[in-house]
Amino acid sequence: MAIGDQVLCLKTTARLGLLDGTLPDPVEVFSQPTLNAFMARGRAAWRAVRERLTILLTDERYQETLAEALIPRSAIRVHLPFEVADYVDFYSSEYHAVNVGRIFRPGAEPLPPQWKQLPIGYHGRAGTVVVSGTPIMRPTGQYRTPDGPAYGPSRWLDIEAEVGFVVGVPTTYGTRLTPEDFADHVFGVVLVNDWSARDIQRWEYQPLGPFLGKAFATSISPWVVPLDALAAAQVPAPVQDPPVLDYLRESRRYGYDLTLHVRWNGTLVASPPFSTMYWTPAQQLAHLTSGGLPLRTGDLFASGTVSGPERRQCGSFLELTWNGAEPVTLADGGVRTCLEDGDRVDITATAPGIDGTVIGFGEVSGVILPSGTGGAP
Amino acid sequence: MAIGDQVLCLKTTARLGLLDGTLPDPVEVFSQPTLNAFMARGRAAWRAVRERLTILLTDERYQETLAEALIPRSAIRVHLPFEVADYVDFYSSEYHAVNVGRIFRPGAEPLPPQWKQLPIGYHGRAGTVVVSGTPIMRPTGQYRTPDGPAYGPSRWLDIEAEVGFVVGVPTTYGTRLTPEDFADHVFGVVLVNDWSARDIQRWEYQPLGPFLGKAFATSISPWVVPLDALAAAQVPAPVQDPPVLDYLRESRRYGYDLTLHVRWNGTLVASPPFSTMYWTPAQQLAHLTSGGLPLRTGDLFASGTVSGPERRQCGSFLELTWNGAEPVTLADGGVRTCLEDGDRVDITATAPGIDGTVIGFGEVSGVILPSGTGGAP
Repeated sequence: MAIGDQVLCLKTTARLGLLDGTLPDPVEVFSQPTLNAFMARGRAAWRAVRERLTILLTDERYQETLAEALIPRSAIRVHLPFEVADYVDFYSSEYHAVNVGRIFRPGAEPLPPQWKQLPIGYHGRAGTVVVSGTPIMRPTGQYRTPDGPAYGPSRWLDIEAEVGFVVGVPTTYGTRLTPEDFADHVFGVVLVNDWSARDIQRWEYQPLGPFLGKAFATSISPWVVPLDALAAAQVPAPVQDPPVLDYLRESRRYGYDLTLHVRWNGTLVASPPFSTMYWTPAQQLAHLTSGGLPLRTGDLFASGTVSGPERRQCGSFLELTWNGAEPVTLADGGVRTCLEDGDRVDITATAPGIDGTVIGFGEVSGVILPSGTGGAP
Repeated sequence: MAIGDQVLCLKTTARLGLLDGTLPDPVEVFSQPTLNAFMARGRAAWRAVRERLTILLTDERYQETLAEALIPRSAIRVHLPFEVADYVDFYSSEYHAVNVGRIFRPGAEPLPPQWKQLPIGYHGRAGTVVVSGTPIMRPTGQYRTPDGPAYGPSRWLDIEAEVGFVVGVPTTYGTRLTPEDFADHVFGVVLVNDWSARDIQRWEYQPLGPFLGKAFATSISPWVVPLDALAAAQVPAPVQDPPVLDYLRESRRYGYDLTLHVRWNGTLVASPPFSTMYWTPAQQLAHLTSGGLPLRTGDLFASGTVSGPERRQCGSFLELTWNGAEPVTLADGGVRTCLEDGDRVDITATAPGIDGTVIGFGEVSGVILPSGTGGAP
């Protein structure tokens, strides 16, 4: 658990007996290399542990004992916080979808016909979800040139700033969740950078969707923010017109007032507002399970690129530079339309907490390595 | 290991000391609930075990001891033979792709422009790969009607008869395999039924590809046929025109002379010939890793629907009934354009073995349950 510039080791905390009574077996659960065992326990367990940790961290009486379990953040190395089961990526920002439509199909209706009827999504590659800080090797692949198809390092590497939701409580086959079931199954939130090789993607993606242009790496932040910590960040989600089918209807429709911050070599280039997402994560989960498919602990579903109505609210460089037509100038003087080798991208986020506090998210960062030089593990 | 109407328990065989010398730890490897540990050991280990088993099963001296490890096939219950890491589905039959193009885009060029330049593929849902015999619940989902979108049980349930390849030896990030590396990484072959809800798929799939229309269940046969067992089934693959890029070029280009047999409620309705596939599994693996993404033990990649030039060689009912225009009459008098509740589909396959023998594959079977009645685990 991240606390300012320190980390509270839950394994040590449990061994000190400080989590007794929250779970039947806190030492065993927090001795696992990932959060999966804890995430599978469900909302009552998540709350019991969270409430206990709040007491431990705020009550003077525990400070001396707790000191044993605190480690400077600078002294740790982060790993994937959970084992990823299946990874799904949605496409739920109307601003992003319209921008992409206008860029790639000028003059035509920018949104696909079903876009407002269901949250469009697809399966990504779970095995290449990597933790923040993992270097990202520029992928090689096939793309189209004026002289025909060619194979080589991608020449159009991009990011997609997204918000990811991590499933804790699994379901059995045949279970269809409603949007109201969301908080009983989703443990928490990570930030996601869905690295994208646009040249590879554009050539390969019809009719079966993105494949290798997005499968080389997806970075996530190392800290999962529990859903309960975001209670004060709930805001009404945009009104949906036309009305959606019953299985996607929400009795109380809310998103999260979460602002992403995208830094390119240190320069803040965009601040996408997650509150503008047309489809909520609760609707995404209801749609994902609408056929009765089972969820597993560790399933990750991401929002799709978060973009707001302003240019400086766009979560991809494709949009930010309007397909390369309007390059971005960075603080170091660099002029960019897409990622160059050595470039670094950091995505952070903030959300309102209780009583005017601010919730910070772990950052998701990555540096681009030249093609063929190794990279993500 | 399946032997006629019996099963040889490799755990018992190892405990009897009969696999000593093939692996450092045969008892441990064959006591696992899946083949993953064995598959990860690599080609020399696969061969050593296979050669030993051939001796054990053919040499008179071992019959008495070996009897302890033999179980009637009727007495066992099959499980998923390996833990699925990521699941990729290709689209590599030219006959199938042309048929689908003609059905859905009459008058237009049936193949997408990149179809002959790269093996098109996408990621499916690993968590819903189920073993043969698992009942398949008809999925519910959203589809288009003349009165607008609706949600309900799929009204157009179909199969896709495919051949799947199971990765044994993983790779590290940055490794790009050539087609020649195929047999060093792929352990073996399973049969695949990629159940498809065409109505859900057609409405959802643009622009990000198939999602819930295919994610509800993918069945595989319970026995993995080792690649080495198929040596005699290698046949030259179709000539590729235009020539492919270097990274997809094969020094010796071969497919497998494997004939699938699709039975619908017991009636043989199609016999798709795998030898006609335009893209070979070695090319699929080279393309999948062409960007340097890592493979994990248990990665499964399927061929895509196998269809030959004749109607009765089509691996989907979409093609077999030509989009429902030409219903199929079954031996029991049933007339079908797509799957009805209670229908059963069995896919088997045969391939030539050494010296005129015939290699059988485990079947992949499934019965359709009505929507909402439970189903695959």
